[in-house]
Amino acid sequence: MIDHVRDIPTPALVLDVAALDRNIRRMADFFAQGACRLRPHFKAHKTPEIARRQLAGGSCVGLTCATVSEAEAAAEFCSDLLIANEPIGPGKCERIAALARRVRMIVAVDSTAGLGAISAAARHAGVAVGVLIDLNVGQTRCGVLPGAAAVALAKEAASTPGVRLRGVMGYEGHVVSLPDRVEREARTREAMAGLVETAALVRAAGLRCDILSAGGTGTYDISGRIAGITEIQAGSYVLMDTDYGRLDVPFEQAFWALGTIISRPDPGRCVADCGHKSMTKDHGLPTVRGIEGASVVSLNDEHATITIPSDSTVAIGDRVFLRPSHTDPTINLHDVFYALEGEKVVGVWPIAARGYPEHRRNEMQPRRHDGHDQEN
Amino acid sequence: MIDHVRDIPTPALVLDVAALDRNIRRMADFFAQGACRLRPHFKAHKTPEIARRQLAGGSCVGLTCATVSEAEAAAEFCSDLLIANEPIGPGKCERIAALARRVRMIVAVDSTAGLGAISAAARHAGVAVGVLIDLNVGQTRCGVLPGAAAVALAKEAASTPGVRLRGVMGYEGHVVSLPDRVEREARTREAMAGLVETAALVRAAGLRCDILSAGGTGTYDISGRIAGITEIQAGSYVLMDTDYGRLDVPFEQAFWALGTIISRPDPGRCVADCGHKSMTKDHGLPTVRGIEGASVVSLNDEHATITIPSDSTVAIGDRVFLRPSHTDPTINLHDVFYALEGEKVVGVWPIAARGYPEHRRNEMQPRRHDGHDQEN
Repeated sequence: MIDHVRDIPTPALVLDVAALDRNIRRMADFFAQGACRLRPHFKAHKTPEIARRQLAGGSCVGLTCATVSEAEAAAEFCSDLLIANEPIGPGKCERIAALARRVRMIVAVDSTAGLGAISAAARHAGVAVGVLIDLNVGQTRCGVLPGAAAVALAKEAASTPGVRLRGVMGYEGHVVSLPDRVEREARTREAMAGLVETAALVRAAGLRCDILSAGGTGTYDISGRIAGITEIQAGSYVLMDTDYGRLDVPFEQAFWALGTIISRPDPGRCVADCGHKSMTKDHGLPTVRGIEGASVVSLNDEHATITIPSDSTVAIGDRVFLRPSHTDPTINLHDVFYALEGEKVVGVWPIAARGYPEHRRNEMQPRRHDGHDQEN
Repeated sequence: MIDHVRDIPTPALVLDVAALDRNIRRMADFFAQGACRLRPHFKAHKTPEIARRQLAGGSCVGLTCATVSEAEAAAEFCSDLLIANEPIGPGKCERIAALARRVRMIVAVDSTAGLGAISAAARHAGVAVGVLIDLNVGQTRCGVLPGAAAVALAKEAASTPGVRLRGVMGYEGHVVSLPDRVEREARTREAMAGLVETAALVRAAGLRCDILSAGGTGTYDISGRIAGITEIQAGSYVLMDTDYGRLDVPFEQAFWALGTIISRPDPGRCVADCGHKSMTKDHGLPTVRGIEGASVVSLNDEHATITIPSDSTVAIGDRVFLRPSHTDPTINLHDVFYALEGEKVVGVWPIAARGYPEHRRNEMQPRRHDGHDQEN
């Protein structure tokens, strides 16, 4: 039984329950006003206990997921799920159709092939799966262009058995982290115009378009106040990272990679055991909490090398808290969160949908070859 | 039962068993000549079946690990383990001492505090744990400087109960991936001189120094031919990546991230479902196998955006193989390898020591707060 931060094996992920709950409260309060609602992105943390608190916090219509395995974990406690991604590949649509027997499922489509795949699985399972037409509103990843192409696919969806056209989706991922508020707002409005206009065209064609889904942590209060947008997919706000921390958003850092100082080979340098296998550096190196003048200068697989003032009292065995640069892929590296109230551990929360758990059930013993089954 | 590559859910990791075995054979043949031996680094793949094949391939004295949980997994099939890292932090030395009851354990130390920690745990368990004095041979991470400081710590180790001085270690991580062979060789020799000279000083002080451990995939044939070096810690050679692939080393790419094309929104672009949560980009973006003229232009959490020639026949649902830029942290993202012979799946091999499995046994239900245990 681990009940104090000093006893946690490292590296580990820790979160501050009070800060987490304050972030949830601030976001719920924002969406309590206006017509738009929140559908928090489960991919950010993949942690059922955090998602339960988001849902209990109010102003939510359900959860957003990126993968089928996330939806499988979320379906245990939430009855309205959007997979904001195109489900293509062995087993995905079949697993979604199986979930649709228990909960309301919506998926993104951007092609006739995609529609065909989810339709076939839904019909085979005897269920209906909702679809959103995925629009490229400027990120240039998946998605059809706003306008005629999107309307054509919406018409096709409306006449495809096994699926139900629910609306349109367009994630403004290309602008969510622009640091300048004025530019971010202008470019978000530009991106959302294509989404809102396409929804109008779909309705003008006599089709239903109840859901307009968009938004991230950097744009929730821009897209979430544009007339017509019904749902925001923000996720990172609940825990934050150094990348979103640069922006003018009212959320607190609520999680850290916890490490132990394993070496202080010279006065100006120490090394912690929380490296690149415990937090990613795709949005930059982490920052250090609580050691004056300390900064991470490199992050190798199992090492964070940290420069410190020569007169620092940091010693081998001390704990260190690093603030990750990118929430989602960092949490994906871990199996549990240690939930803290101050320095007290009040829960060890499973990160249930980490990785791609569907593969674990396929484990097969290797075929043995001569000489390969003996210890050296 | 999945027995063909087309049936593997994606994203996934796949490996080519024949290429893997050829890499193992080439490395074993190199070390079959000369006095130096191989202690392959388990951290590269964390996969017992691969490690078993490395040991069975010959020329090995045991395995190198970076973490205690890797050593716990490796102890199931290997009886001589080096943790080439300073074990500091709750439970680490105790777990190593427990392993030392079953297998030969060696750890790195670079401080009096580190010696004290492993000594206390070893004495408590009634075992002896081997230690290597970790030297900073130029990487400037952990490690004492070669020469007098290292000899002083070696003397301290030799008189510390519960530990046995086995030798010295110095990883030339700052030069292992220098592309120019001449420069790499010159700088490796320079780094290894400090290691060899320190070993001589330790022996001159009347102490034993049987192990001189160093080397990586880029320097195995340089450090591994320097008189006095006894063990090489190379790991990535067995599967390779684009970073080591730039070097003049005789190993083949043997693993890939397997994805499915989920979108082809315009003729010159397609998107696969194997993103940054299925392979890291800390050494650059992955490259594409088997699609002429294709290149990955961005890697988001669940998406690889790929530019392709406009006349490409790539279609939604097609499989794509991406070659990762960095072996170790990519494999750490996954729970299994699908082992292929051609397109046939011949095994689904657990990646047993992925992440930090010691945390899973600490899972605790969260304390319930009012209103937090109800579904929205």
